[in-house]
Amino acid sequence: MNAPMTVPDDAPVDVPDSRAAFEARLRAVGADRYHDKHPFHARLHGGQCTMAEVQAWVINRWYYQSRIPMKDAALMSRLEDPALRRIWRSRLEDHDGGLEAGGGIRRWLRLAEGVGLDPAYVASGRGVLPATRFAVDAYVHFVREAPLVAAMASSLTELFAPAIHERRIAGLLEHYAFANPETLAYFRQRLNEAPKDVAFTLAWVLDNARSRADQDAAVAALTFKTEVLWAQLDALWHAYVAGNIPPGAWRPGDGGRG
Amino acid sequence: MNAPMTVPDDAPVDVPDSRAAFEARLRAVGADRYHDKHPFHARLHGGQCTMAEVQAWVINRWYYQSRIPMKDAALMSRLEDPALRRIWRSRLEDHDGGLEAGGGIRRWLRLAEGVGLDPAYVASGRGVLPATRFAVDAYVHFVREAPLVAAMASSLTELFAPAIHERRIAGLLEHYAFANPETLAYFRQRLNEAPKDVAFTLAWVLDNARSRADQDAAVAALTFKTEVLWAQLDALWHAYVAGNIPPGAWRPGDGGRG
Repeated sequence: MNAPMTVPDDAPVDVPDSRAAFEARLRAVGADRYHDKHPFHARLHGGQCTMAEVQAWVINRWYYQSRIPMKDAALMSRLEDPALRRIWRSRLEDHDGGLEAGGGIRRWLRLAEGVGLDPAYVASGRGVLPATRFAVDAYVHFVREAPLVAAMASSLTELFAPAIHERRIAGLLEHYAFANPETLAYFRQRLNEAPKDVAFTLAWVLDNARSRADQDAAVAALTFKTEVLWAQLDALWHAYVAGNIPPGAWRPGDGGRG
Repeated sequence: MNAPMTVPDDAPVDVPDSRAAFEARLRAVGADRYHDKHPFHARLHGGQCTMAEVQAWVINRWYYQSRIPMKDAALMSRLEDPALRRIWRSRLEDHDGGLEAGGGIRRWLRLAEGVGLDPAYVASGRGVLPATRFAVDAYVHFVREAPLVAAMASSLTELFAPAIHERRIAGLLEHYAFANPETLAYFRQRLNEAPKDVAFTLAWVLDNARSRADQDAAVAALTFKTEVLWAQLDALWHAYVAGNIPPGAWRPGDGGRG
């Protein structure tokens, strides 16, 4: 474990931050750049989204949800320590669920159904914005290829997720007829799951990013991840709020329940 | 070589298209989806862009230019035939130039300087939109990982490039004070280089995509590539025309010549 250490202001740049200062740098990334500050979320949680905009969000964010367990499998494929793999495996269980039921992916498709979409259409991934795919795939590639400290740190956006999930649940329940405990089960369940994941991962990153270069790579990885999230909402806004839908992407009215 | 063949309308879907019909399918992707139809290009070529918008385009498209020779190296790393590698190598030469001079990358930085940017800033890649990086990196990953016919076919957007380069040269010369033979040298040179590249690659794809599945994969790869190009302009528009610049990206006034 790194003991807290005091670094003078004029320290050479390659001296690592103290554990507390490093954690503060990581948390500052969220304060500055997490997508809770994106205008699309204000619009969604404040009840200003049309149902077509909500549907577009559900379709596109499905792609992100669908890649999370693939991202976690990519990370596990790099972990030599069975103890670490056993811990990380709970994320696969949380997202994929059991053979017949459960899991965040199935819960997301209940939301899809609740907003009037055919779950099979959403699950097909057809109509997802290319920009969504590029951003999400960049995350999967990053976790597959980056140094392990950076790959682990990129999941630390979960530090900031519970607050936005709570605001989302409240905002959707207040403003949209489709919102109920069944359709919002994904978000409620994440409130139970994310804290254990992120507590483990934060401690692991704080313990294992020992050099200044490691710490900088962890901060850069978390920044990259906020860019992955932000870019998805920018693309959603440009296509479905500003009305510039690119060739081949979902158009309102398509993909409904038959 | 595939001889032209006649396929009846009720043919099973796994019968390959004739060479001519397959080529027509590839060309139709450009007619439907190439980024010559994106509103940003109408704005750029018609003289409606502000200088800040032109600068944002130059900064972001730099990232694409900078990754093209890396993409070509990735492809060459997969080519077992020395004859094919020798032919493909001319693309590296075209883009990277010699040790001291020449090459598309250096010509792009002359454009950067011409529009009032510090070439070193542009070359650093700082300020590039995350969405640009995600789209361009998706292309590099695709060429590294996709079946070879698809990887080759993804470069066939060059079939459609000369027409847009000619319109661009004319439009920029007509509307912008920065435009002259020196700053536009990149585009003029591509008019000389692209036809030989694309003639070779088109023939190679027509010869080597022998099954219907290969042909479908080639069409899908070319479609994917048009999405890579289109998504870059969507991101540019959202950030710099609509004015929603994401955290960390270039802001007008930064990166100028000192």
